[in-house]
Amino acid sequence: MLEKINQPNDIKKIKPEQYGQLASEIRKFLLEHVSRTGGHLASNLGAVELTMALHLVLDFPKDKLIWDVGHQAYTHKILTGRRDDFDTLRQYGGLSGFPKRRESPCDAFDTGHSSTSVSAALGIAAARDLRGTDETVVAVIGDGSLSGGMAYEALNNMSAMEKNFIVVLNDNEMSITRNVGGMSAYLGRIRLGEHYHDLKDRVEETLLRIPKIGNALASGLRRSKESLKQLMIPGMFFEDMGITYIGPIDGHNIDDMVKTLREAKRLKEPVLIHVITKKGKGYMPAESQPDLFHGVGPFDLRTGQMRAEESADTFTDWFGRTVVALGESNPDLVAITAAMKTGTGLREFGERFPERLFDVGIAEQHAVTFAAGLAAAGMRPVVAVYSSFLQRAYDQILHDVCLQKLPVVFAIDRSGIVGADGETHQGVFDLSYLSSLPDMTILSPANGGELEAMLAFALTLDGPAAIRYPRGTAPMEPDGQTEPLQYGKSQVVSRGGRIALLAVGTMMEEALAVRDGLREQGMEATVVNARFVKPLDTAMLDEICAGHEMIVTLEENVRIGGYGQMAADHLAERGYRGIFLPVALPDEFLPHGSVEQLRKRAGIDADSILKKILSRMDGSAREGNGDRK
Amino acid sequence: MLEKINQPNDIKKIKPEQYGQLASEIRKFLLEHVSRTGGHLASNLGAVELTMALHLVLDFPKDKLIWDVGHQAYTHKILTGRRDDFDTLRQYGGLSGFPKRRESPCDAFDTGHSSTSVSAALGIAAARDLRGTDETVVAVIGDGSLSGGMAYEALNNMSAMEKNFIVVLNDNEMSITRNVGGMSAYLGRIRLGEHYHDLKDRVEETLLRIPKIGNALASGLRRSKESLKQLMIPGMFFEDMGITYIGPIDGHNIDDMVKTLREAKRLKEPVLIHVITKKGKGYMPAESQPDLFHGVGPFDLRTGQMRAEESADTFTDWFGRTVVALGESNPDLVAITAAMKTGTGLREFGERFPERLFDVGIAEQHAVTFAAGLAAAGMRPVVAVYSSFLQRAYDQILHDVCLQKLPVVFAIDRSGIVGADGETHQGVFDLSYLSSLPDMTILSPANGGELEAMLAFALTLDGPAAIRYPRGTAPMEPDGQTEPLQYGKSQVVSRGGRIALLAVGTMMEEALAVRDGLREQGMEATVVNARFVKPLDTAMLDEICAGHEMIVTLEENVRIGGYGQMAADHLAERGYRGIFLPVALPDEFLPHGSVEQLRKRAGIDADSILKKILSRMDGSAREGNGDRK
Repeated sequence: MLEKINQPNDIKKIKPEQYGQLASEIRKFLLEHVSRTGGHLASNLGAVELTMALHLVLDFPKDKLIWDVGHQAYTHKILTGRRDDFDTLRQYGGLSGFPKRRESPCDAFDTGHSSTSVSAALGIAAARDLRGTDETVVAVIGDGSLSGGMAYEALNNMSAMEKNFIVVLNDNEMSITRNVGGMSAYLGRIRLGEHYHDLKDRVEETLLRIPKIGNALASGLRRSKESLKQLMIPGMFFEDMGITYIGPIDGHNIDDMVKTLREAKRLKEPVLIHVITKKGKGYMPAESQPDLFHGVGPFDLRTGQMRAEESADTFTDWFGRTVVALGESNPDLVAITAAMKTGTGLREFGERFPERLFDVGIAEQHAVTFAAGLAAAGMRPVVAVYSSFLQRAYDQILHDVCLQKLPVVFAIDRSGIVGADGETHQGVFDLSYLSSLPDMTILSPANGGELEAMLAFALTLDGPAAIRYPRGTAPMEPDGQTEPLQYGKSQVVSRGGRIALLAVGTMMEEALAVRDGLREQGMEATVVNARFVKPLDTAMLDEICAGHEMIVTLEENVRIGGYGQMAADHLAERGYRGIFLPVALPDEFLPHGSVEQLRKRAGIDADSILKKILSRMDGSAREGNGDRK
Repeated sequence: MLEKINQPNDIKKIKPEQYGQLASEIRKFLLEHVSRTGGHLASNLGAVELTMALHLVLDFPKDKLIWDVGHQAYTHKILTGRRDDFDTLRQYGGLSGFPKRRESPCDAFDTGHSSTSVSAALGIAAARDLRGTDETVVAVIGDGSLSGGMAYEALNNMSAMEKNFIVVLNDNEMSITRNVGGMSAYLGRIRLGEHYHDLKDRVEETLLRIPKIGNALASGLRRSKESLKQLMIPGMFFEDMGITYIGPIDGHNIDDMVKTLREAKRLKEPVLIHVITKKGKGYMPAESQPDLFHGVGPFDLRTGQMRAEESADTFTDWFGRTVVALGESNPDLVAITAAMKTGTGLREFGERFPERLFDVGIAEQHAVTFAAGLAAAGMRPVVAVYSSFLQRAYDQILHDVCLQKLPVVFAIDRSGIVGADGETHQGVFDLSYLSSLPDMTILSPANGGELEAMLAFALTLDGPAAIRYPRGTAPMEPDGQTEPLQYGKSQVVSRGGRIALLAVGTMMEEALAVRDGLREQGMEATVVNARFVKPLDTAMLDEICAGHEMIVTLEENVRIGGYGQMAADHLAERGYRGIFLPVALPDEFLPHGSVEQLRKRAGIDADSILKKILSRMDGSAREGNGDRK
């Protein structure tokens, strides 16, 4: 069946009685491919029928479909002629794990972060109405994404839409882990029909209080359950915002969804369709552990066992252990996560100190200002968050934390290149957006032990601090190289030669490899572990200036606004006359691929750096130390 | 009466029958002072009784009160011992126009931007519960701030609060101008009781459909209006999120509010009290034109006439005129504002092209992604926004606009030093947070004519562009100096001497003054109008390097991540051997004061710059061109 579907709208040739078989084949396809390549699984398994229904009703690429976050769009990719690309999923040069306009005209808008879909779809619909065309615009948003404030900003703005506009709320009670918050509880009540019962009780109580006829009224109502159900609008919350609510409907029943979508298309107003789906649907291991099967590496399809991961400790492991240990001795230490308890390593802390862990849902803005409030009241909050998601809270870091110099510690995981998730998830801007904030201290550990020390250290400061570290295995701390942290001081790891390598965080590994490479050429190099990106260690820079003819900065951040640029500013002002060679990421978005591939592409791997250094030295020698441009 | 109130809790000594008189005296005090100093007026006039009620019920500084935005906290300042400071309101070294923890222990959290109060208050309440103390925590948020997504993130998180927590919704149907959006419409229905009538009709309709007894039930209900009212909970929206709703109550009736606040304090759960107030209350000119009297300069108290403002054109005027003119010839040009139609200069555009102006409410995140959607669908959106408020949409600029290289133009007003509003409103970070974004073009006009040219130019680019300009009068375009814009090219305005002054935007005025100053000392200087901050004009820099012994960069942005630092990076890499002197704002938050005072304080006025240049030249001469550190 699946083989008949090679381009958009091919699904419409399938007979309704074969929908079930097609859904099974799609699930089988997804499982076979994702178990080999890794990728997002549970969310895609849950959205198979929903996607099929959308494709049965919509006309691609004329109609516009925007997936929130976008990790659930695999079936959409299969149905729009990209089935054969799944062997390359999330690999360098291959199919992206998220919607990409450059991949297909059927991808109307790129996504990756949460809660953007309704805003983008409203913009696309507003353009449609200005042009007077008649395409249908649909946003599909999960209930998890609905806890992000910008989704609410868009819902609040939806009532202004006077023509057709459809939001499908794909409600599976989950983001990565179970959802939290008032909205989630509300949706839960709709699902269970409890809201209806609540209201029924309240109506009865009220009627009973009416003199004389109250009893008769109440018993009359009790006999008319079905009618009363119409009285109760389950989506009153949305209706209150001027949005027509339809639902809840079964998100695995294609016929119901097709019928409902057709109906919604005819309405000349904003509509929200509430669809109930099951995350991981159709694959037992994923149904029972949807969080584990949210994003996966390769796994054994038969048993659901993940292929052996590296057993070495990741930075996340180091963070998780350290925050528990520090929590033991410091009762004021509290931790905040935006729906990423497991990913950020806070699970154990939450088990050990349940009252001191706050999971606020997908709501980074609130997470940061909530932490600021905790800090203002004397607690020591640690906000554990991925680098690219912290972007959402830039203003809160500036306006609510830094302006009051509140001691909030940001534990920034997934900094630098993240790999397979691609451009939306690369954590390569954090040094740039944090370094210009007054009173912010920025640290970056070169190894696990240093992360441990930095977290303890940051919690002693009387202002905000950010510790940035990448995903993946943490390098071991070199023997005998532990030196206590001193505020604003870098660590000179080795001295020698005319070249100085100043590395931020895990770029120390590259620095050491470059030093070894230089050694093979008969040269020595000074290696410095920057430790602090802010404040910049100007004393170290001044000292390095004096004895070195080349200063190389190494960081896994874009060059503009990064460590190298801050160092350049100091060197230029100071009048450094040697060669300055900044190694950083170029001024572009990095696609998906392995971390190694992307480092090489960007020229920040040890080999590329070594080549650059040697070529600059040659150039310098050739030009007789003159103008080196 | 007012003279008896000299410290927190003094208000409790006043007899209830004198509350009215005290409220009158506070209004008179506010009017007398703000008409002289300027400041926020209408919002403060509307919150007099509400603030008094809060002070009658709360115990300061033990209890914690957080004002959203904070421009309505003047009465709070009067009641907490700061009455005598009002002569210095918003002046350098004087009383801030916003809550400041450093001013008083009664200010629990600094605010300035919208929609942060509930998050901060929840953090403070969570800290209270961990410590086991019993202070009351109250957030006061306007209905305008409620359109900001982070307020919703906090409301969504409120249901997790198991102890007492109070949010006062100060509903005056306004932010600066009339509010928009579904939530605002919903609150309007509550105010008017329409929601209740809607439901009543719906109940009747439903009952009538019940076989046999429907008619009797319906007529019974019609006779029991009061009972039915209890059935209908006007704040169902909030109740749905797990928040106990009380209201709506009259925000100018102190007795009612005191009673309600006392009741709310006793509840061991999160409570929202919906208070209806009138913006500008008690001063007829402000009541009838609350938007005009939102933030004011000095005005004539008797007539309500504003004191003569400068009649010269501001950058905002230039923008407003230009966007209308461009809109005439380009039907794809659309404009987006986040509740700042007047402030950003879009009023005329909205009158001329009502269907092409989108006011999305206080919702910068949505505004930007909505614009991205419009651009993805082929329109040419211009987002007009203040620099400090655009911070709220950093991730949307990066993730939704730049990643897809969508042609959204950001017209960034109030860049640089804004003056009296102080640190929360200074637009001094935009170059830093924008310059590291791939594919972003950043322009800054030196005068009104250049803004006009840049806006037209930006709308021809095939990617995102930001144009940043300050508040206040736009300098006149110098005669005969108009040169067409070329992508990435700066304009060499005059050539001569060994010193080069590279200025961003209105710092051209300083550059020209510095040149004149140097001339008086018998020296010439090259003056360059950077025009583009990104891409950096490296060809110009290379050319300047060759002939100049000193390069001075001038910008009204923090130094870290700004233009000077980008130039330094290039100069350092290139091996420039002259003196590099970056003039920019220091790595700190700038308080309130006049723009002139703050420029002087930061050392970026022409006099200070001239002195720096001369001192560096002397130093250089003394050191015989050696190491200049």
